[in-house]
Order: sequence, then C-alpha cells, then structure tokens
Amino acid sequence: MSEQSSDGSSDFCPRFHHAIELIGKRWTGAVLRALLRGPRRFNELLGAIPDLSDRLLAERLRELEGEEIVSRHVDPGPPVRVAYELTASGKELETALTCVGQWAERWVAPPKRKRTA
Amino acid sequence: MSEQSSDGSSDFCPRFHHAIELIGKRWTGAVLRALLRGPRRFNELLGAIPDLSDRLLAERLRELEGEEIVSRHVDPGPPVRVAYELTASGKELETALTCVGQWAERWVAPPKRKRTA
Repeated sequence: MSEQSSDGSSDFCPRFHHAIELIGKRWTGAVLRALLRGPRRFNELLGAIPDLSDRLLAERLRELEGEEIVSRHVDPGPPVRVAYELTASGKELETALTCVGQWAERWVAPPKRKRTA
Repeated sequence: MSEQSSDGSSDFCPRFHHAIELIGKRWTGAVLRALLRGPRRFNELLGAIPDLSDRLLAERLRELEGEEIVSRHVDPGPPVRVAYELTASGKELETALTCVGQWAERWVAPPKRKRTA
C-alpha cells in the first residue's frame, strides 16, 4: 500500500533514516546491546564496552533518554545508585539488533586477537 | 553456547559493533535501503535521498565497496554509465534493515510536512 514514484524518491523514509542513524551512532549500538540483558549501572556499562569513555557513555545515555529508548532510575541510597534500562520502545529494538548481529556473524571477519593458550 | 562472564564483558561483540556502526553511519542506511530495490546509478541514488551531497554519496559508496557490501559496474557506453548494486552480503542486510524500518514505523514520530491537498 506504499506510494511508489517513478523517480525513486519513495525510497527515502525519514523515520527509517532517523532510526538507523540513531542506533548506529558511534557506541550507541554497543550500549543498547548491553542493556538488552537488563538494567545496568553506569560503571557496569562502562566496564562492558572496551574503549568507551565516561564522557561519551554519559552523552549517549542522555541521547537515548531524550529519544525515550532508555530510562534512568535513581536509588537515593546511600550510596546513590543510578541504573539505566530500556523502555518499551528500547526493548523492541531487540529483533533489529539481533538481525544485525546475525548478519555480522556471517559477514564480518572476526577480530584478530592474541591467543593466550 | 556463547561465553558469559560475570563482569558483563561478553556483552560486547566487535563484529556486531562494526556492523551496526557501518550501517548506521550518516546516510549509509538510506543508501542501502535505496539499493535494496535493485541497481541504481549514482544520480538515481542522489535523487532518491534528499539533502545528500555528491561528495558524501561518493564517499559512502566507496566505503560500502571497501566493505564488499556494494559493487560498482561500469558500462563503457557511450555514454559511460556507472551503476551500483548490493553484493550477496549487502542483500542479506535486508532483514535487518526491514526490522529497523518496522521499529521506526512503530516508534519514530512521522515528520511534519505541508499538506498539498
């Protein structure tokens, strides 16, 4: 039922465009994937994603909160504990992220790493 | 069968990370989506994606060729015609891109636009 135009302009979908660039933004995919396993504290996320800085993790989480994909929960403690979790819309990204993961397993070369044994 | 570690480090998968940031890079998702419909010439792609510049389209296509997701075919003509199409791995991105599109239809607000009728 989608409209088609002979010049191909109907190829473009602003909502798809927004979504793909949102989840594919540097580090965002990795953060979402980590959160698919359940709520995580800031330092747990930081520890789970190699080479991600505090500053960038904070920025990405803020963006995801702004998009209502992640919500932030504060337990006043003490000690204060802040956890992040996927909202309903965030959880529904699982299928898409799983498909990307399956494609990657098939087509992306595994990284070279040192063998330790 | 995947390895799990108690510190959460197994959340991170370098191949997934590469894939999601590849397809989510600025304009790349839109280019891939346009190519899912079949081979396209450079100007057809340019016409199909609003606001994408010549320079950036050329850059994205070169990157996608480097990743062996897109292949470039030259018909020597005259006139010379260059077309781009998805390789086998590129075509297999369809499922993932479709999932992202479905998520976007459900969760991303439609853009406001002028009604012409």
